[in-house]
Amino acid sequence: MLTKTNPPREIERKFLLKRLPDGLTSYPHEEIAQGYLAVERGGVQVRLRKKGNVRSLTYKRGSKTSREEREVRLSAEQFDALWPATAGRRLTKIRYDVPWESHTIEVDVYTGRHDGVVVAEVEFDDLKTCREFVPPPWLGEDVTGKSRYSNVMMALE
Amino acid sequence: MLTKTNPPREIERKFLLKRLPDGLTSYPHEEIAQGYLAVERGGVQVRLRKKGNVRSLTYKRGSKTSREEREVRLSAEQFDALWPATAGRRLTKIRYDVPWESHTIEVDVYTGRHDGVVVAEVEFDDLKTCREFVPPPWLGEDVTGKSRYSNVMMALE
Repeated sequence: MLTKTNPPREIERKFLLKRLPDGLTSYPHEEIAQGYLAVERGGVQVRLRKKGNVRSLTYKRGSKTSREEREVRLSAEQFDALWPATAGRRLTKIRYDVPWESHTIEVDVYTGRHDGVVVAEVEFDDLKTCREFVPPPWLGEDVTGKSRYSNVMMALE
Repeated sequence: MLTKTNPPREIERKFLLKRLPDGLTSYPHEEIAQGYLAVERGGVQVRLRKKGNVRSLTYKRGSKTSREEREVRLSAEQFDALWPATAGRRLTKIRYDVPWESHTIEVDVYTGRHDGVVVAEVEFDDLKTCREFVPPPWLGEDVTGKSRYSNVMMALE
């Protein structure tokens, strides 16, 4: 979620899974294809994403729990003009939106060359809610900020 | 100019000026403000630009004479959402379009903290035309590919 303050920040935690939650495929889900136009060593990323029929360009800066994030919707024409530049820096996954208490846990099941990798992300409105979050029993190790499980690393490797 | 081939390439040369061409301010000109969302060491840039009332996002890769370049027009809303992320990586200039034989020479007069710097660029449809270009007497040293005069270096410094 993007807050309306300036700069907008994304507050989230990422987990591995002990097991898939019951009835995973019954929850709302969409295919995501994303690729990176640019990745700076300092933590800046410019990402293109197609989620269902929604295309977007996202700027992210920083790492770990709290990051600056700016996102704009793109038209199909804009997206198609830029997408070829992400060749070799792409990944695909299916995102399931699993409700848990007052939260939505996004379970990402990777496809393509990362087939079999599953991670879960939870976004929070504020740092207090983030700290107090008690994960469901099917979530495992907290890998927030671990580069091994960052999308950008997976896209580049 | 962008060719329609894939990937689109930009073919250009850049010069310093021995002197300003006669009647410079009588030629069509527009203010340009540009800033960089991301700059990779490997030569990838993602640039935002406002030229007059035209806003754009440009992806560039490579250096020197011939570069891959992909550009999309942005709405004011899209531009305004991303522009704050370029803070500290911006420059402003006035671009004059000076006709010379069958070419248009773009004379960029920098404003702001690079006030006083003037460079000229000529874009070509193909490498043959690029090689055969005979500059007018008011153009000086060819600085094509010299990082000192690249916009991205000037924006970052």
